Amino acid sequence: MNAVQPPLQQSFSVPFTYAVHFTRHLFAPENPLFRDYLGQPSPTGQAKKLLFVIDSGVLAHHPTLPDAIAQYVAGIPSAILAADPILVPGGEAAKNDPALVDRLIDAVDQYGIDRHSYIVAIGGGAVLDLVGYAAAIAHRGVRHIRIPTTVLSQNDSGVGVKNGVNYRGKKNFIGTFAPPAAVINDAHFLTTLDERDWRAGIAEAVKVALIKDLAFFEWIEAHAEALAHRDTEAMTELIYRCARMHMQHISSGDPFELGSARPLDFGHWAAHKLEYLTNFSVRHGEAVAIGIALDTVYSQLAGRILAHDADRVLHVFQQLGFDLFHPALAENESENLRRGLTEFQEHLGGQLTITLLDALGQGIEVHDMDFGLIQQAVGRLSSVYSVPFSVG
Amino acid sequence: MNAVQPPLQQSFSVPFTYAVHFTRHLFAPENPLFRDYLGQPSPTGQAKKLLFVIDSGVLAHHPTLPDAIAQYVAGIPSAILAADPILVPGGEAAKNDPALVDRLIDAVDQYGIDRHSYIVAIGGGAVLDLVGYAAAIAHRGVRHIRIPTTVLSQNDSGVGVKNGVNYRGKKNFIGTFAPPAAVINDAHFLTTLDERDWRAGIAEAVKVALIKDLAFFEWIEAHAEALAHRDTEAMTELIYRCARMHMQHISSGDPFELGSARPLDFGHWAAHKLEYLTNFSVRHGEAVAIGIALDTVYSQLAGRILAHDADRVLHVFQQLGFDLFHPALAENESENLRRGLTEFQEHLGGQLTITLLDALGQGIEVHDMDFGLIQQAVGRLSSVYSVPFSVG
Ligand SMILES: NC(=O)c1ccc[n+]([C@@H]2O[C@H](COP(=O)([O-])OP(=O)(O)OC[C@H]3O[C@@H](n4cnc5c(N)ncnc54)[C@H](O)[C@@H]3O)[C@@H](O)[C@H]2O)c1
Ligand SMILES: NC(=O)c1ccc[n+]([C@@H]2O[C@H](COP(=O)([O-])OP(=O)(O)OC[C@H]3O[C@@H](n4cnc5c(N)ncnc54)[C@H](O)[C@@H]3O)[C@@H](O)[C@H]2O)c1
Ligand SMILES: [Zn+2]
Ligand SMILES: [Zn+2]
Repeated sequence: MNAVQPPLQQSFSVPFTYAVHFTRHLFAPENPLFRDYLGQPSPTGQAKKLLFVIDSGVLAHHPTLPDAIAQYVAGIPSAILAADPILVPGGEAAKNDPALVDRLIDAVDQYGIDRHSYIVAIGGGAVLDLVGYAAAIAHRGVRHIRIPTTVLSQNDSGVGVKNGVNYRGKKNFIGTFAPPAAVINDAHFLTTLDERDWRAGIAEAVKVALIKDLAFFEWIEAHAEALAHRDTEAMTELIYRCARMHMQHISSGDPFELGSARPLDFGHWAAHKLEYLTNFSVRHGEAVAIGIALDTVYSQLAGRILAHDADRVLHVFQQLGFDLFHPALAENESENLRRGLTEFQEHLGGQLTITLLDALGQGIEVHDMDFGLIQQAVGRLSSVYSVPFSVG
Repeated sequence: MNAVQPPLQQSFSVPFTYAVHFTRHLFAPENPLFRDYLGQPSPTGQAKKLLFVIDSGVLAHHPTLPDAIAQYVAGIPSAILAADPILVPGGEAAKNDPALVDRLIDAVDQYGIDRHSYIVAIGGGAVLDLVGYAAAIAHRGVRHIRIPTTVLSQNDSGVGVKNGVNYRGKKNFIGTFAPPAAVINDAHFLTTLDERDWRAGIAEAVKVALIKDLAFFEWIEAHAEALAHRDTEAMTELIYRCARMHMQHISSGDPFELGSARPLDFGHWAAHKLEYLTNFSVRHGEAVAIGIALDTVYSQLAGRILAHDADRVLHVFQQLGFDLFHPALAENESENLRRGLTEFQEHLGGQLTITLLDALGQGIEVHDMDFGLIQQAVGRLSSVYSVPFSVG
């Protein structure tokens, strides 16, 4: 037998950089942003191939988009379209059909998309998650540009590093961590969102404000009416601040979530369960608002924050037009929620880690929750269901 | 319109660490390595779930392995088996069948494997590539331990950061970069390899030696006879040195291959083509030996290295028992090779980048190849096909 061979230690860091750009009318001929991003032709003169994938819900409201893209790209010397844009269904349907992943992989093959080409996705969070996933696994990663078109995707999902699809009904069961090459938020897309999608994404901004930034929470309180009345100025400001905080969180923490803590999941354990129970008829952001309301009341009942502060949170959600209760939460003496907590732990693995509030603007991680208090919190929300709060 | 919102710049590094361990008879009751690796039970007392996946070719030669694993794991207080080991076909078949990926994802679901559980793969490079891929996409990454059982996987593929499966016959078309939690090389497995698999992996060691380390090349020359006669001492030494160089290369360079250069692909452009042309009846390592021979002769014809040095390379391969030519290379006036060069460029994307030799132990990157010289090199290899070289 050989002399013992000592273990070989491997250790390296992989640097990632990308920028999130803000604009309006990205593909208007006079808008230089996308052209500038792609830059000059390479020394070898090879054009960069672009493959666009578009959310059908976006196309329905922006029917001239493919033509605008074709004309715009024709004016970029360093780029060519690999093919006509690929249309995929918008919303959760994009993530439920494995055939769509195959279709995108086939396109990569068919159009000769390589690791120096770009797959550009235009759509809501669901379409971005699908396309980001396909781009991440094809050739072990093709460059990917995200153009998010909803509030939620512009301020949260689209500016981060995760992608994924559902597997046999299990949400995000498959996916990767894969930073985009770039993100471009075009505020014009927001104008065609329906009421619910306009509102839903605001919940993520309330979330980061509550766990990290009291001043931002106060700004949201001050602009709640404007936001509820679809003021685009207020919305673009909200998105910018929320996206920035989200990105800072990623870079200062554990970008690929190798540990167990996920403070940005404040309010999300109940939200995930509620999305399931309602078969996703409740939007992610709508569920998050309810989940935050629940964990805020819980924080109060656990003696962490004042009743007055909890009421401010509920009040701002109501001003924004959110419902703060759903009957599914209370079914079987909240047995649904009990299971939701277990599933949340299983999904993250390791010890249960839940974020609560220690003050407005200050989250805190805890490792267990009292089920009696959860039930009380549910009761409180159900009793005021659809009755406006007033801050006393 | 709002004031212009400046872009938000994101920038972070993700640190990865893992160790490659060397042992024999990993699951013998008295071997502490695996037990020590898993460590003490967590403070919460939760056992770590282990899901084993075994290469059917390994099982055929090591039929008691599942029992040994069951007994061994029963003796680790901090771990439990999630299920009986899953068997998958060995060799390229593992990577050609999408149903196998689904089967592994299903197992993750069915057995409640979370991001703190471990999927442990035991097998050749193909099985490790399959299981590594499934582990990387399930829950966006479940912890993964690799136990490579071939020379190639112990000294090259198994100690790196890549995984992947084939897609409609396209080799490694889908995959990710995902470092393992740990790698354990058990030399006992090597004893049951057939002649071809014993030999094939040695080509990767010749490769790193030629481009990086003259002393290692001379060591291989000195031990070529011993290696050809299945001397395990020599083989474990070769594997250790090759694995170390491979790992150093990864950590000192561009681990996730975000650029175009891949110096470790010396000899691989022709090798990949040859694997295809022969429908993978030529093993990866066998093809790499031929590819290295070709690019070595090319380096000589291009005036980069001496004829004597090129002969040393061909000679050592012949001592090791490698064939240095395959008729598919010369078909249609080497049109196959011309296409191989283009495909290699397309796969990497961007500018063509090929590694040649500037001396034994010193690779150099070039950005074009002279097709006339390639044909001459092919002619040279074909003329000496199966005729032993002597170093004059
Ligand atoms: N990757 C992450 O980190 C992350 C984080 C949070 C949420 N998500 C995912 O995001 C998804 C939800 O995304 P979402 O809230 O953006 O909704 P969505 O993608 O489900 O889209 C909602 C609807 O809006 C339509 N739509 C999109 N843009 C439009 C526009 N400009 N005008 C009119 N209609 C438009 C879509 O076609 C769809 O019908 C979920 O699948 C969730 O899991 C991902
Ligand atoms: N991920 C990477 O970075 C990387 C690098 C190089 C190659 N690869 C891949 O590795 C694969 C080739 O791997 P390989 O050369 O290890 O061969 P292999 O995995 O194809 O296995 C060859 C044969 O040996 C059998 N086998 C495995 N271990 C055995 C043992 N101990 N005793 C007896 N039989 C055994 C297998 O069942 C199979 O039949 C290719 O798919 C190639 O693409 C991956
Ligand atoms: Zn969310
Ligand atoms: Zn190789």
